[in-house]
Amino acid sequence: MKRILLLGASGSIGQQTLEVIYNHPEDFVLVGFSVGLKTSEVSKIVSQNPSVSGFCIQEATRREELQKHYADKKVFSGDQGLMDLIAKIPCDLVVNALVGFVGFPPTVAAIEKGYDVALANKESLVVGGELIQTLLKKYRVHLFPIDSEHVALAKCLHQHASSEVERLILTASGGSFRNLSREQLSRVTVEDALRHPSWSMGKKITIDSATMMNKGFEIIEAHYLFGYPLEKIDVILHDESKVHSLVEFKDGSFLADIGPADMRIPIAYALYGGQRNAPSCQRLHLEDFGDFHFHRFDPHRFPCVGYARQALTHGGTALATLNAANEVGVYAFLEGKIDFLKIEAIIEKCLAEMPLIKHPTFEQIVLADRQARTFASHLIKENLV
Amino acid sequence: MKRILLLGASGSIGQQTLEVIYNHPEDFVLVGFSVGLKTSEVSKIVSQNPSVSGFCIQEATRREELQKHYADKKVFSGDQGLMDLIAKIPCDLVVNALVGFVGFPPTVAAIEKGYDVALANKESLVVGGELIQTLLKKYRVHLFPIDSEHVALAKCLHQHASSEVERLILTASGGSFRNLSREQLSRVTVEDALRHPSWSMGKKITIDSATMMNKGFEIIEAHYLFGYPLEKIDVILHDESKVHSLVEFKDGSFLADIGPADMRIPIAYALYGGQRNAPSCQRLHLEDFGDFHFHRFDPHRFPCVGYARQALTHGGTALATLNAANEVGVYAFLEGKIDFLKIEAIIEKCLAEMPLIKHPTFEQIVLADRQARTFASHLIKENLV
Repeated sequence: MKRILLLGASGSIGQQTLEVIYNHPEDFVLVGFSVGLKTSEVSKIVSQNPSVSGFCIQEATRREELQKHYADKKVFSGDQGLMDLIAKIPCDLVVNALVGFVGFPPTVAAIEKGYDVALANKESLVVGGELIQTLLKKYRVHLFPIDSEHVALAKCLHQHASSEVERLILTASGGSFRNLSREQLSRVTVEDALRHPSWSMGKKITIDSATMMNKGFEIIEAHYLFGYPLEKIDVILHDESKVHSLVEFKDGSFLADIGPADMRIPIAYALYGGQRNAPSCQRLHLEDFGDFHFHRFDPHRFPCVGYARQALTHGGTALATLNAANEVGVYAFLEGKIDFLKIEAIIEKCLAEMPLIKHPTFEQIVLADRQARTFASHLIKENLV
Repeated sequence: MKRILLLGASGSIGQQTLEVIYNHPEDFVLVGFSVGLKTSEVSKIVSQNPSVSGFCIQEATRREELQKHYADKKVFSGDQGLMDLIAKIPCDLVVNALVGFVGFPPTVAAIEKGYDVALANKESLVVGGELIQTLLKKYRVHLFPIDSEHVALAKCLHQHASSEVERLILTASGGSFRNLSREQLSRVTVEDALRHPSWSMGKKITIDSATMMNKGFEIIEAHYLFGYPLEKIDVILHDESKVHSLVEFKDGSFLADIGPADMRIPIAYALYGGQRNAPSCQRLHLEDFGDFHFHRFDPHRFPCVGYARQALTHGGTALATLNAANEVGVYAFLEGKIDFLKIEAIIEKCLAEMPLIKHPTFEQIVLADRQARTFASHLIKENLV
């Protein structure tokens, strides 16, 4: 029985993680969780999981009231509450389904506590991939990605030597705007952007899909997860989101991971520690295979992938800058403050202007994040992009 | 340096095997070969491979003349010559690229001699799969399939436990007549049949593709090669011959082997003993992926697959009957003696009429083959189908 601590239980990945846990009660038990502003989720999750011994909410103002109501549970709040949850609730696996940079410190804390981590928070690896790889070795714990692409790569790479591998190929749907020209992109609305063609996801990642920064992040993650250099990681556009990624081998043939566009498959794979188990969702039937369309990826059409490659080439705090600028840009777009294409402009400018530390400590990454946020917000406020 | 003995050097697979050997002179050396009626190939092959110490031709009448000309080589002829070649020429791997039942005795002889076998002669496993599996264990040698589908399955299954596997899925192009109705099939010509949409192959296998008996044979081979029961082996139609087969795993996701429609990739994989090595052909570039079309396989449209399943269910000499009836039918069609759909009728009738021995010896398989051939020829001659 694996004791699960779930960070970000009220989000899209968090909810699907709960489904996987409920579908395999013989294998998993929830011992703690965090939610954001949706405190209404707390009572639902606690009543379904009597094994929960503590949880964390975002708003400090509501902590006391909830602590009174759940007298036998440990109740925490805020960013520090996430760290306390990890420190105080014993578990076997931390599932980090937080969105954004806020997920990075808990990932580091979980590893330092000696816990395996199932990571849906891609920003952790983007901003701190090098540090996290060092810590994983030091604390001898495992990190399992929760991402359809990286789980697909892990399945294709299964037991192959890296000498057999020619390159990793991430598939990309191309997001909500895959059929629009650059000119048309300058006029898109938030509602347009939130209509992803094949996956049901949170708002932040849906916008990251539309800009393709999501794919840029995945290239960085793939680099740190599997240890291949940037030039061996490629992208192909694939309309149907049935092929979740591919590996090309040195003999000129490929392995592709194929399956339904359902996050419960990669979530289960990560929860089982990189093992396949009975599915938590409908199978993709052979008669529904239909057509698979692939297209060449055009880097000029999606400059964010280039920014991600550039940041990884520079390394160090350039990666925290990339992520911070993107987060500020995406939320400004979601709040209607800037046009869609300004997200890219903010990232480009931040990468050009922010200082670079080559092998930063945890604290230097946190600082670089703050500085880049401040600078990006300034760019927006002063209309400098 | 692996010493290769190549049976069927003048055929399509044989010629491509020679290319793979020539492309990797540091790894492979040809020590012996056989050709069929194309004795003109002998001088070409001998002059390119000074390491050859013996060869076999089909026609006994030409043996003496060739033996005089190649005084320092051992020259054999006929079916017995294939056996002598295996007995007299020391090697590390026998590549069996013969076509038809004639390839079965050499496969058995090679295994009994203690040689690993790379097997393109699918009839060997079809007629004698059970016996061959027993012999492989007894003589502790390995059999590597040379077939794009089975190499694809081996690559997808790579290091997975059978408990993780839901089923094997063979892809089928559907052959030359995939878009024709049963009614239209009754009027097709030999030339029509020899136009395969995606693979360049010999005549026999091209007709087997058009009837889909080739896929039926592959189901039987997959059963013996990988040990999965019939109900766990499925077929899907795939137009482009880029996906060479798939494995569905128990977690609801698939691995697919993708690559160019070029037999040199599976040949090299088999020659390297189930290892990937530098390609002997043009890579499939990402920008050429294009569209992949899949269709449901309709067993009523292609009854030969059903006959193959029926023969495997009955087991024993039913498999030799299946193959013999098919060989007689295909060559009668190629010679213009019967209509295309009569191939199926001959197989159906032979399976219904011929006696069944459950676990036959080698000699009983050979006898069953002869009896079925005689009966099938009789059906044609007397116009009984």
